[in-house]
Amino acid sequence: MQTIISYIASNKDRFLNELFDLLRIPSVSADPKYKDEVKRAAEKVKSQLEDAGAVNGRLFTTQGHPVVYAEKIIDPAKPTVLVYGHYDVQPADPVSLWKTPPFEPTVVGEKIFARGSCDDKGQVFMHVKALEYMVRTNTLPCNIKFMIEGEEEVGSAHLGDFIRENKETLKADVVLLSDTSIIANDIPSLTVGLRGLSYMEVEVTGPDRDLHSGVYGGAVGNPVNILCEMIASLKDKNGRITIPGFYKDVLKAGKEERKMLNKAPFSISNYKKDLGIADVTGEKGYTTIERTAIRPSLDVNGIWGGYQGEGAKTVLPSKAYAKISMRLVPNQKSDKITLLFTRHFKKIAPKYVKVKVTPLHGGEAAVTPTDSAAYRAAEKAMEVSFGKKPIPVRGGGSIPIVALFEKELGLKSVMMGFGLDSDNIHSPNECYGLFNLFKGIETIPLFYKFFSEGQ
Amino acid sequence: MQTIISYIASNKDRFLNELFDLLRIPSVSADPKYKDEVKRAAEKVKSQLEDAGAVNGRLFTTQGHPVVYAEKIIDPAKPTVLVYGHYDVQPADPVSLWKTPPFEPTVVGEKIFARGSCDDKGQVFMHVKALEYMVRTNTLPCNIKFMIEGEEEVGSAHLGDFIRENKETLKADVVLLSDTSIIANDIPSLTVGLRGLSYMEVEVTGPDRDLHSGVYGGAVGNPVNILCEMIASLKDKNGRITIPGFYKDVLKAGKEERKMLNKAPFSISNYKKDLGIADVTGEKGYTTIERTAIRPSLDVNGIWGGYQGEGAKTVLPSKAYAKISMRLVPNQKSDKITLLFTRHFKKIAPKYVKVKVTPLHGGEAAVTPTDSAAYRAAEKAMEVSFGKKPIPVRGGGSIPIVALFEKELGLKSVMMGFGLDSDNIHSPNECYGLFNLFKGIETIPLFYKFFSEGQ
Repeated sequence: MQTIISYIASNKDRFLNELFDLLRIPSVSADPKYKDEVKRAAEKVKSQLEDAGAVNGRLFTTQGHPVVYAEKIIDPAKPTVLVYGHYDVQPADPVSLWKTPPFEPTVVGEKIFARGSCDDKGQVFMHVKALEYMVRTNTLPCNIKFMIEGEEEVGSAHLGDFIRENKETLKADVVLLSDTSIIANDIPSLTVGLRGLSYMEVEVTGPDRDLHSGVYGGAVGNPVNILCEMIASLKDKNGRITIPGFYKDVLKAGKEERKMLNKAPFSISNYKKDLGIADVTGEKGYTTIERTAIRPSLDVNGIWGGYQGEGAKTVLPSKAYAKISMRLVPNQKSDKITLLFTRHFKKIAPKYVKVKVTPLHGGEAAVTPTDSAAYRAAEKAMEVSFGKKPIPVRGGGSIPIVALFEKELGLKSVMMGFGLDSDNIHSPNECYGLFNLFKGIETIPLFYKFFSEGQ
Repeated sequence: MQTIISYIASNKDRFLNELFDLLRIPSVSADPKYKDEVKRAAEKVKSQLEDAGAVNGRLFTTQGHPVVYAEKIIDPAKPTVLVYGHYDVQPADPVSLWKTPPFEPTVVGEKIFARGSCDDKGQVFMHVKALEYMVRTNTLPCNIKFMIEGEEEVGSAHLGDFIRENKETLKADVVLLSDTSIIANDIPSLTVGLRGLSYMEVEVTGPDRDLHSGVYGGAVGNPVNILCEMIASLKDKNGRITIPGFYKDVLKAGKEERKMLNKAPFSISNYKKDLGIADVTGEKGYTTIERTAIRPSLDVNGIWGGYQGEGAKTVLPSKAYAKISMRLVPNQKSDKITLLFTRHFKKIAPKYVKVKVTPLHGGEAAVTPTDSAAYRAAEKAMEVSFGKKPIPVRGGGSIPIVALFEKELGLKSVMMGFGLDSDNIHSPNECYGLFNLFKGIETIPLFYKFFSEGQ
């Protein structure tokens, strides 16, 4: 039997060509003008799954973008793994900052540069090729179902309905997903916790039209200044979020948990050097690892208003906007935080402006067990492929679907991603290492092997 | 005798043709390659003045572009008005944003589109045609001198020398200029003071690339949040600007001056209703009129950073930008304020961000009296032509020449402009309304009439 390593070696070029075909499709779920491209990407994923040996491939329509489904059932008596991933991608803006075209995948050094190369097309593709290998070598030891969605980057708004309506189809023993990262190529890790998210857009309106700042400046509330003041007031001098009730449901981590967490290999000087910053900052009393793992946060993801062109235009703008999001920790509820934020933000607005708050995206925090057969199988698989036992880490990002699987299907998830924090996901020049792509394809069959043996 | 209104009506097409001849000359003073065109525009203005009935026309050479002079002295014993204007224009860049060629005047709707149509060739031309009317109808009641310069758009650098060297030639009783705007076509106004200006762009840089807000949020300083905090800190809870030394040179208005100022017809409820705001705001202890007239202000004219598209992108941006300007009052110096702002803004930046401040524009404040015969004449002229008493306003950009006339010749100025803030001066698609052009020609002879009667 051909080993997975030699199989990868002899099919490398074909794998890359196939992945590049998928990466070339600009499946930007946030932007309605890419609707057809999103659908085209769904069809491509479906056909790639079928080519790899999955059957019953279909596109489930939803109120938004379709969900790709396919399966390979070898024996209904055997356990079933539900593989989750997403084929939609973040917008490529600002395109001018890309060194290579975002939708023309380019290998530079040892990395594939393209929007979605890591998040999540490249990682979904690893599962497709792992299936292909197991089917061709007849080594698939259990059943697999694939559910690859197209709305992850816009909050998976229609996925709850989809799951509730297709419980039987999705029935499985565990969820396996690769939409997270490892600490480094020589430090494998498994994500065992994710922060939740509450994301909104705010609009502050002052006068009903743009005014001349010479004629009105000093007497009319400027919505940009006021938005800045409102945003500034959302944190106190200790970096704590000032929204009343915000921390009420946060489970305070115990001494032991914090000690364990801070044992992960981490160099603050490398961290600062990598980001080009003179210092870190954040909630007082917590380390950098804790601030991104067990503590909630608040960030402005975008802001705009008034004149942004060349030179000096003396305008007192009518409107100012911001996108503001909060990362949440287990036990905080996204809907509740959205409500608390909205109420507070409107309350702190001075009466000379109007404020509109539009929730855009939400998701719950999740923690996954480290003592399950599936977790141990993933741990063992990585230990074999990397030659090193993976470290369990809590990630700062959010994958709302993990909480959803637990709530609707009673399923735990294993988050076995192979990306790196330096892959620029959600940024210009997103990339995915060839090492990571092939290491993923190599590791996944091992997971199935150990998972089936451990059942 | 033919009235000015019928005179305009019967000469409309000729007026436009003559103005268009002037607008076709690309007299861009900032760009040396247009040097000959600037001179050609000066000659055109001189010949148009002579055709209108002025005599002793000449081009005064300076170290830079020439100054056009011409006069019509009817009786040395009568008062003399010195008309100031400029025939040079802003560069047309970016030309690609113009909908019609910048130097091929085109009437679209009720507006003339061309570089210089409003600023200031169109407004200078009103004075030429008003002279023509008064000469032809023998109704000029006083002496006029014209001084039309060619370096206003580049800071009038050689005008101080020119005025000092030609004091006798320029001797007059008052300066009349049309290089400002009215509030709206049905709300005439006279500019009675110009606040000074200090305008800059700031750039705040956090991490050296955009980051994922889930992975880094809470541990890495977000430049948008920080920019908001820095901007918020620029004013205290009483609406006072917190930059150290900012108010040091502000001349505090006396009780009497404030009382006078607040006597101007002003309805706070109409003001709020017009702007669609529930309340006004500003520096504590001052009225709305005072806040925009005798007190300095600080406004964000534009802000941008991070994701501004549709939907939710969970980015922690690398950079945030803002355009921030301060309106200054007499005795504050623009250069000094720019320096104070820059120093303070850098000082308040936390060490985990980098800050860049780029000064974009500056100008000194000026005030003109509202109790002079000339001001009252302008007020009365507009009241007759618009059917509504003009509102005295402070604002608009600075016109350094006003301070220069006062300093060198001891002359006060009357700023009777007819532009609109929406005329895109200094921007692509500069325009000037036909209404405004003809209303200016109609109003100017009335000024001379009332000015002579009031002496």
